[in-house]
Amino acid sequence: MSEAASQRRIALVLEYDGTDFSGSQAQPDAPSIQHALEAAIEQLTGKRPRVALAGRTDAGVHARGQVGAFDTSSSLQTPVFVSGLNAHLPDQIAVRSAREVNADFDPRRHAVSRTYRYTIHNEAARSPLARIRAWHVREPLDTAPMQQAASLLVGEHDFASFTRDEGILTVRCVRRCRVSTEPPNVFVEMEANGFLRNQVRRTVGALVQVGGGKLNVDGFQRLLDVPELASAGPVAPPQGLCLEGVVYPGLDLMDTDAL
Amino acid sequence: MSEAASQRRIALVLEYDGTDFSGSQAQPDAPSIQHALEAAIEQLTGKRPRVALAGRTDAGVHARGQVGAFDTSSSLQTPVFVSGLNAHLPDQIAVRSAREVNADFDPRRHAVSRTYRYTIHNEAARSPLARIRAWHVREPLDTAPMQQAASLLVGEHDFASFTRDEGILTVRCVRRCRVSTEPPNVFVEMEANGFLRNQVRRTVGALVQVGGGKLNVDGFQRLLDVPELASAGPVAPPQGLCLEGVVYPGLDLMDTDAL
Repeated sequence: MSEAASQRRIALVLEYDGTDFSGSQAQPDAPSIQHALEAAIEQLTGKRPRVALAGRTDAGVHARGQVGAFDTSSSLQTPVFVSGLNAHLPDQIAVRSAREVNADFDPRRHAVSRTYRYTIHNEAARSPLARIRAWHVREPLDTAPMQQAASLLVGEHDFASFTRDEGILTVRCVRRCRVSTEPPNVFVEMEANGFLRNQVRRTVGALVQVGGGKLNVDGFQRLLDVPELASAGPVAPPQGLCLEGVVYPGLDLMDTDAL
Repeated sequence: MSEAASQRRIALVLEYDGTDFSGSQAQPDAPSIQHALEAAIEQLTGKRPRVALAGRTDAGVHARGQVGAFDTSSSLQTPVFVSGLNAHLPDQIAVRSAREVNADFDPRRHAVSRTYRYTIHNEAARSPLARIRAWHVREPLDTAPMQQAASLLVGEHDFASFTRDEGILTVRCVRRCRVSTEPPNVFVEMEANGFLRNQVRRTVGALVQVGGGKLNVDGFQRLLDVPELASAGPVAPPQGLCLEGVVYPGLDLMDTDAL
């Protein structure tokens, strides 16, 4: 009874380099972010919890603001979850902040928006220093039509063209889709209430076609007007993608004493 | 005779991620930048040359503007050296430009300045995404005295305190030493006619002591006033260091058709 009474739910903000992982979700016989976190929490608290994550990230995709939550009966203070878990986690994963949340907090269902950023390294020669964080696109990209196309995505649309997910509702609300440049890089930043599988990577693939003159803005518009499964693309490679942050109403997970 | 007549010297500008290498210079039984380059040139031209490099970089140190040179009797055009070598080199190394230079061009001896940049990741929590490019310093750094100390280095001085190299002349001319911030990063940029072994890393180590309040600016000044082998430091770790560029009088190696 006293155990149950002291049960707490802890939310974590996570950064990771996804290069060496098969993705965020636990899978048999493959290293995942979820599995590494559960193992570190077990080492710290003596009990292995189940960690729920706000967004699924594929193999090779990074995060600076992934959110996870788990239940624990440990009485450790929240800053100790930051330092303690960082001592046990592999170099590729770190906890940026920890905070006690309501017992019903669900990092996936309670999220009102997620922001992803995609980095394109747009230069003739490939870059060894950028290679694990960017997609190398050799052909010079014209970012003006890319930005024009990106702005068409904002609002509520059926994004079926931007996924291969079948049998699910494919309407999402995109709040922001912005193309910016900081030579030699081109960034695509996208915020939405939720994303379909590979939606950001297919969006970036289609935007690069626009920037390279292979698809015009009208053609891009048609991907929205005529939702047809997986007609947009190609799927940009994973290493350019980073989950920057997740927003919850009335809750700032970075606002803690931990940092 | 015709072979000798068609012999050319080619200079390359190189970028590399030094994480997986034992350093720039060839060593028996250890992967080096020089060795990887010589192997790639052999694959491209059929003959293995000796590659000379402008600056020695230690294991784990990166470069965006290292310069190498080699002789070849190949008649390949210089842009083909860029694309051809990049096809043969491992992902961690790339040629940014290639240019034919005078037969007596010596990338080490003809360099009039070298610029290094050091990245300090200055935040409480470690960063998985910054870890192979930055030194993680937990304690908040006060960059004002760091900049003050850095400016003392400019000019011709005996830098014996900043190296362990014995029996060599330890006077160098530092043209620039600047501390800048872009939170959560602190950068130290340093340009000199030449550097002693570990000079940048010992300088950064001493500047971090100044920024953390463990050494004051007067104490830093004494390292110059009283040159005493290896009295400055600690030696900052290699992964924060990057050789940004090398300058040759009247020769811009990036000014080619290759890019």
